[in-house]
Amino acid sequence: MSRTVYVNGEYLPEEDATISVFDRGFLFADGVYEVTSVLEGKLIDFDGHAVRLERSLGELEMPMPMSRDELLEIHRRLVAENGIEDGMVYLQVTRGAADRDFAYPPEGTRQTVVLFTQSKPGLADSPVAKAGIKVVTLPDLRWDRRDIKTVQLLYPSMGKMAAKAQGADDAWMVEEGVVTEGTSNNAYIVKGGVIVTRNLGPEILHGITRAAVLRFAREAQMKVEERAFTVEEAKAADEAFVTSATTFVTPVVEIDGVPVGQGAPGPVAQRLREIYLEESRKAAV
Amino acid sequence: MSRTVYVNGEYLPEEDATISVFDRGFLFADGVYEVTSVLEGKLIDFDGHAVRLERSLGELEMPMPMSRDELLEIHRRLVAENGIEDGMVYLQVTRGAADRDFAYPPEGTRQTVVLFTQSKPGLADSPVAKAGIKVVTLPDLRWDRRDIKTVQLLYPSMGKMAAKAQGADDAWMVEEGVVTEGTSNNAYIVKGGVIVTRNLGPEILHGITRAAVLRFAREAQMKVEERAFTVEEAKAADEAFVTSATTFVTPVVEIDGVPVGQGAPGPVAQRLREIYLEESRKAAV
Repeated sequence: MSRTVYVNGEYLPEEDATISVFDRGFLFADGVYEVTSVLEGKLIDFDGHAVRLERSLGELEMPMPMSRDELLEIHRRLVAENGIEDGMVYLQVTRGAADRDFAYPPEGTRQTVVLFTQSKPGLADSPVAKAGIKVVTLPDLRWDRRDIKTVQLLYPSMGKMAAKAQGADDAWMVEEGVVTEGTSNNAYIVKGGVIVTRNLGPEILHGITRAAVLRFAREAQMKVEERAFTVEEAKAADEAFVTSATTFVTPVVEIDGVPVGQGAPGPVAQRLREIYLEESRKAAV
Repeated sequence: MSRTVYVNGEYLPEEDATISVFDRGFLFADGVYEVTSVLEGKLIDFDGHAVRLERSLGELEMPMPMSRDELLEIHRRLVAENGIEDGMVYLQVTRGAADRDFAYPPEGTRQTVVLFTQSKPGLADSPVAKAGIKVVTLPDLRWDRRDIKTVQLLYPSMGKMAAKAQGADDAWMVEEGVVTEGTSNNAYIVKGGVIVTRNLGPEILHGITRAAVLRFAREAQMKVEERAFTVEEAKAADEAFVTSATTFVTPVVEIDGVPVGQGAPGPVAQRLREIYLEESRKAAV
């Protein structure tokens, strides 16, 4: 059954969902994106994603292509038309189609807006989250503005494949001896009851789930340190985990073949996952 | 008048030249490209571009989507159908369309192949080349595999705009105190008769025009040093210039507001441009 996809004002069967070959998203990776989870038909942290979208666009001198309310309406219509109970809505905005030139196209060039859904039944009860994931470490070769959520995702994609080739699930990227983040998630360790995760900056994505999880952790009186940590620290930690919009909180049980703690999901990650899912469901729209 | 564009086996009017929104070139910048110049209806250094295309694809574990002869035939047909005397042919190959996943799609997924032309009458007699260009320097924030010619071109695009905002034509990117290259060209200085340009490595694109120009320079008994140079060295140089497939050899007359040499195109750059154009025309196909 074909999904309905949104492309520049139209709701189309996915086979007909196309963009121009002159789209700057295709030719220059001149575009940004967001992924919003859907649980029980409702959007998780839509506002956070909309705010970050606006920030990413602003960093690239692009306006919001429409209001947040209009974006929300498109999200909801796609969720309804595609019958998404659990899954996600993907949104991409580019600078639009124009004859190829490194210089930006003239003001007034229509931005490209694409949204589609993915159905992931049982997203919140993933067996992967119960078992935990294995990660390997790789040098972080990405560009230096990872705080802008651009579609320049080739290296994370290569990293995912490199991890699979080594029998792992994902990769943590390392720069100047410290962990930046996972290929599509923020990275954390827990040691002596303290949750440690990389401080915000251009080196990492400013995760919407990261912000929520740290808020919930602090509300639950857990101690949080936002600072860089080394691979050695991570291997010696009591626990490790990752967060992202679509994996929520997922334990990491092995790093470069070394079991983390007991080599099984730890209590802090499990508790944070529960709190995050509970609170997110309450606030879902 | 509408151009004819090649998309996956079809020759289409540009308005109909589209790709799926699920194309990995659009969603992940998972694609590579080449630009081949056309002078008097003939392709400049087609073989060099075809070889580099195959190398870029290989680095990303992608095969060539067709033989070099087939690629050449498409180039020639587009040049003919679009009546290109002077201009260029753009070629992009991506890993194809598949439901969004950081992991690569299954083997056998059809790669996307797009080619289009741009007409640039008088390309070889550009007034810009006669006057020389002004560059500004910017930190090089790109990813660390610039030897792979991917479509992750957002930062070079931002760099071009930053240069324009400062009244310059282009930007030279600087990393660890030394110049890597221009936003879409290789960078050179000339001091005491010696041509200096960054040595090959993952830090820079392995320019097809660079290789040809260095060969011609050596054949003309000019001295060439392939090594990194600083911005200060560049500002104190006798000459500076850039090379690329579509600008050939173009003098740089100002760096960060400082005139280079006499602040006018120098004899080495002018001579290399002449030799390059002469030899390339002879070898054009």
